[in-house]
Amino acid sequence: MDRQQRLWTWEQTAEPYLFAASLLFLTSYTVRVLVPGLSPGWSTFWEIVTAVTWGAFILEYLARLLLSDDRRHFVRTRWLDLIVTVLPLLRPLRIVDLHERMQRRRDHPRLALEARVMAYAGLTSLLLGFAASLAVYHDERGAPHADIRTFGDAVWWAASTLTTTGYGDATPVTGRGRVTGVGLMFLGVGLVGAVVGSFSSWLMRRFRQEGEA
Amino acid sequence: MDRQQRLWTWEQTAEPYLFAASLLFLTSYTVRVLVPGLSPGWSTFWEIVTAVTWGAFILEYLARLLLSDDRRHFVRTRWLDLIVTVLPLLRPLRIVDLHERMQRRRDHPRLALEARVMAYAGLTSLLLGFAASLAVYHDERGAPHADIRTFGDAVWWAASTLTTTGYGDATPVTGRGRVTGVGLMFLGVGLVGAVVGSFSSWLMRRFRQEGEA
Amino acid sequence: MDRQQRLWTWEQTAEPYLFAASLLFLTSYTVRVLVPGLSPGWSTFWEIVTAVTWGAFILEYLARLLLSDDRRHFVRTRWLDLIVTVLPLLRPLRIVDLHERMQRRRDHPRLALEARVMAYAGLTSLLLGFAASLAVYHDERGAPHADIRTFGDAVWWAASTLTTTGYGDATPVTGRGRVTGVGLMFLGVGLVGAVVGSFSSWLMRRFRQEGEA
Amino acid sequence: MDRQQRLWTWEQTAEPYLFAASLLFLTSYTVRVLVPGLSPGWSTFWEIVTAVTWGAFILEYLARLLLSDDRRHFVRTRWLDLIVTVLPLLRPLRIVDLHERMQRRRDHPRLALEARVMAYAGLTSLLLGFAASLAVYHDERGAPHADIRTFGDAVWWAASTLTTTGYGDATPVTGRGRVTGVGLMFLGVGLVGAVVGSFSSWLMRRFRQEGEA
Repeated sequence: MDRQQRLWTWEQTAEPYLFAASLLFLTSYTVRVLVPGLSPGWSTFWEIVTAVTWGAFILEYLARLLLSDDRRHFVRTRWLDLIVTVLPLLRPLRIVDLHERMQRRRDHPRLALEARVMAYAGLTSLLLGFAASLAVYHDERGAPHADIRTFGDAVWWAASTLTTTGYGDATPVTGRGRVTGVGLMFLGVGLVGAVVGSFSSWLMRRFRQEGEA
Repeated sequence: MDRQQRLWTWEQTAEPYLFAASLLFLTSYTVRVLVPGLSPGWSTFWEIVTAVTWGAFILEYLARLLLSDDRRHFVRTRWLDLIVTVLPLLRPLRIVDLHERMQRRRDHPRLALEARVMAYAGLTSLLLGFAASLAVYHDERGAPHADIRTFGDAVWWAASTLTTTGYGDATPVTGRGRVTGVGLMFLGVGLVGAVVGSFSSWLMRRFRQEGEA
Repeated sequence: MDRQQRLWTWEQTAEPYLFAASLLFLTSYTVRVLVPGLSPGWSTFWEIVTAVTWGAFILEYLARLLLSDDRRHFVRTRWLDLIVTVLPLLRPLRIVDLHERMQRRRDHPRLALEARVMAYAGLTSLLLGFAASLAVYHDERGAPHADIRTFGDAVWWAASTLTTTGYGDATPVTGRGRVTGVGLMFLGVGLVGAVVGSFSSWLMRRFRQEGEA
Repeated sequence: MDRQQRLWTWEQTAEPYLFAASLLFLTSYTVRVLVPGLSPGWSTFWEIVTAVTWGAFILEYLARLLLSDDRRHFVRTRWLDLIVTVLPLLRPLRIVDLHERMQRRRDHPRLALEARVMAYAGLTSLLLGFAASLAVYHDERGAPHADIRTFGDAVWWAASTLTTTGYGDATPVTGRGRVTGVGLMFLGVGLVGAVVGSFSSWLMRRFRQEGEA
């Protein structure tokens, strides 16, 4: 019980630093992918930022693993934490978890559940769509016969994938780009699910309220 | 309270004029985009119509802002009004708001909620799809290597985007056209959400009625 | 009231003949589109079958219009009947209406509502998808630069449209073909809506049953 | 009643063997499609594995048919069993059935219904997507003008079909490949339905819990 307490204290303390580190990681990745012709000095600087923040994520995960009572239980129930530690570009997936935990602590008047679901889905999609655009642009720009040649193409492709529209006028051709693409497609199905589910749930509630009135 | 009353009176009085102005704005934009070889006189005429109606939207928004008790609250809660004032082609988004407010006032027997959701979604999609077709056709027709060369192509692209089908046989290639496209895709996800949500809500209600009978 | 009775008697008597006429119409259209090199005799025969059945639909609609008490009310509430009379290829849209009316009369133990919705959606999609494939193949096969060159291409396009997949490897290029396509896309959104809505309604019911057990 | 008992005993005994046979069938099909330049000996070996397992499925179905009290009832209610016996690549469709029957027997604490629906939908999609990739790759690789030339292309196409994204940068061109594709599209609509339905059902339950708390 004592250890569990220390884990909680740790997580509360570490949260803002982790959030800052996430922003730093995304910034460094963005700069390294999007800014052409970085001077060697700046290039090294941003590579170090990437490495240091990534290292911090891994150390923080190991620290929490050590603090936890039951380590196998920790790994099994916190599998999302492990994934976002290995692939920091997926960190936006933790937004839901983070915000829900913060709300449970503060107990302030909350938004309707549907509004939160829509906000989470929207924000996660936006951030992961941006991260996927960066990753795909990074993988595709040097590939021969690539359709995605500018960052604009990559964003356009990401938007058409997330909404399951899928024009196909610009699609990844490299293996790594396509793996990112498959992930984004399934995220898109989830996004549609969140929008549709919230809509249908909101309609049902409105109906019950009208029936009572 | 007195001011709030005056704001309400204003909104009731302004509504029909705004509606007429919206139609004029859309007509002038449609004519300027679709009618080839306008004589200089007519061209100037329609440009003035566009400018005057747009100016009227801005003035009306400012008037309401001045009439409101709490201006920051007004800007925050009426963010949709601000958006449709800056981009008048998005005015159909206010249909829901407008109709709901009218119904609250009149209190006449209303349609089932699902029927209204479907009607709003359908009408908004139709009008915004038409506006998006115009805007994309306007941006694309002069672009080199463009797929969208006729207004028919633009409508075909808009329909395939709104339904999240996304053939990709004709897609925008300019930056502005693609920004319009991304907006239309997310509107499409919302349209699918409205259709599916209404369907599922209607099914649930029917079931409860059959269970009671 | 007497007239209403006669209208009902008429509709009950006419139903099987209309159904047979619908099958004949679809058969004659199918033969005329799909069988290459019909002899002039057969070609004329099938054209007459098309004309006679279409004429029968129109006469039957006019007969019902004459029998009805309030003609404007008849036209307004039976708008679907008018549409399928003018465009007989859309007749499968009446399946729901027809079957529901038959069930109200017979009162035999019915399927769960979700199963019926799925069955209606499936059957309507199948028949309208087939009709759309025929119509598009008919319009496209002679067009220059057409992607849809065989009936197989048309069916493949119709399936990818109905499921809102939209590959875009074969799409209509003629105006009439694209109008058919837009109709099929929106039907596809409805199909997805029916599948998803039924699923979600079924899940909710199962949950309530498990909660009670 | 006695016969029904024997059928149940049979099914319980046969289940693990059938599961092993399904894995063997999929393995043999995978090896035959994906491993290039098999020696004649190995090629014959894997063909025999395919034939024997397929034969076992057919014999087991016939055995159950003989054991059943009412054979027409068996064929009508177990139509899925007949389909997966004729086309063993569709065997993953039986996962739901199998697991539900196992759970009814064991009565151990079960997952929430939505979690199970998501797990079934995910696993079925994964396995059928893999089987469809294999089948389409097998049919397309020798076809002239084919877009799908590597197994990677086939997987990429299957993912974009299952999520109803439908890029269309690589699509089947052969008749058999397209039949597989149509099946996968409708499976995709079902997958989206399962995801969306579960989401909406989960949201509704959460709301009721929050309302009670």
